[in-house]
Amino acid sequence: MALSDVKAFAFDVFGTVADWRGSLIREGEALGREKGLSLDWAALADAWQAGKEPAIERIRSGGAPWSTLDAIHRARLDVVLAQAGVSGLGEEEKDHLNRAWHRLAPWPDSVPGLARLKRRGAVSAFSNGNFALLVNMARHAGLPWDCILSADLFQRYKPDPGLYLGAAELLGLPPEEVMVAAAHEGDLRAARANGLKTAYVARPLEFGPGRAQEPQETWDVMAESIEDLAGKMGA
Amino acid sequence: MALSDVKAFAFDVFGTVADWRGSLIREGEALGREKGLSLDWAALADAWQAGKEPAIERIRSGGAPWSTLDAIHRARLDVVLAQAGVSGLGEEEKDHLNRAWHRLAPWPDSVPGLARLKRRGAVSAFSNGNFALLVNMARHAGLPWDCILSADLFQRYKPDPGLYLGAAELLGLPPEEVMVAAAHEGDLRAARANGLKTAYVARPLEFGPGRAQEPQETWDVMAESIEDLAGKMGA
Repeated sequence: MALSDVKAFAFDVFGTVADWRGSLIREGEALGREKGLSLDWAALADAWQAGKEPAIERIRSGGAPWSTLDAIHRARLDVVLAQAGVSGLGEEEKDHLNRAWHRLAPWPDSVPGLARLKRRGAVSAFSNGNFALLVNMARHAGLPWDCILSADLFQRYKPDPGLYLGAAELLGLPPEEVMVAAAHEGDLRAARANGLKTAYVARPLEFGPGRAQEPQETWDVMAESIEDLAGKMGA
Repeated sequence: MALSDVKAFAFDVFGTVADWRGSLIREGEALGREKGLSLDWAALADAWQAGKEPAIERIRSGGAPWSTLDAIHRARLDVVLAQAGVSGLGEEEKDHLNRAWHRLAPWPDSVPGLARLKRRGAVSAFSNGNFALLVNMARHAGLPWDCILSADLFQRYKPDPGLYLGAAELLGLPPEEVMVAAAHEGDLRAARANGLKTAYVARPLEFGPGRAQEPQETWDVMAESIEDLAGKMGA
């Protein structure tokens, strides 16, 4: 099957489409000014994000029951705030801060790139985020998704094969007609192993300046941005 | 809870948003001209649609295994074509005709009404149709959904409570903050029984001229169209 047979694009969201780190830092700094908190919000964002994978891995391995990413974020927030010595936030303020993940900003090329690709095929969020988080983020950021494919639809987390095959099945397509686009090679490895096409989208600033990682493998499409991916897919 | 608390709108699709009957008749007539078939396509559309509920009811009652609406439509198409004495269509032509359900036209007020409502809250398809059918229809008809909530996500059919409560859960909202909009009172009855808000959208032409049905009950909003609903919801 050639790339011309691809009929749908399934996008990783955190890091690939949305700048989670920059967005969390901005929300944190605004809250800090309001509440008089002096804090390294970049370190807090990194620690918040870093706690996600171990929590997901516990669920994947059966060591913890299913819970949504919203709940994982919320539990982790308590930990990182305590580590940072922040004690003055109420439950409502912490819930609001937790929903900063619903208000992430897109990278500058995300909205125009998705709008172009959408003429070429269906564009879907495809994320470990929960459905409501992804719907709210799309409305906030103007992401022109045709549909939302989220971990809670499957009660499984990437890289479980059930997500990749389940996404193709819901889209009514054979796996080789669906392209997963991601800035993370673990996601693409699982996509390829399950027969889907792969697009690597470079996001050298995802983890902050000076922390770019070079891709280790060659994927079906190697793109510098979502607009670049659109161009390479003829959109 | 007041109507002002509604944060998402879940729309029935066939009949409420899309004119299935008019669209099937147009597709049938075009195919008839091409293949030299002389047929009452309105009668065929009615018979096709009429076979849907009994098939869904067999699945709901456990008398048949789960199958998607695409598959139900396809099986029913063989029956109605045979009843109409049509035998000259190949598998590919029948599959294409079956996908006429993916190409339904919206009522004239559907796209502008949804675009207005979308400023007020999330707008979702909420249908017994399968995910791929609804994604394809949205792309074809320009329906500006924020997300797709389809029967195959739940492996259940309306009016199973699991769909109504499951839709609210995925949207991250209590049932009373979700409004189901439909031209069919059975759908609204189930929505109300499960604590969701209800909007009746009149579609006097759904079953063809002279077949309008008056609503039997009073719903939270009584609307003449989706634009009228948008106006009544302050959008």
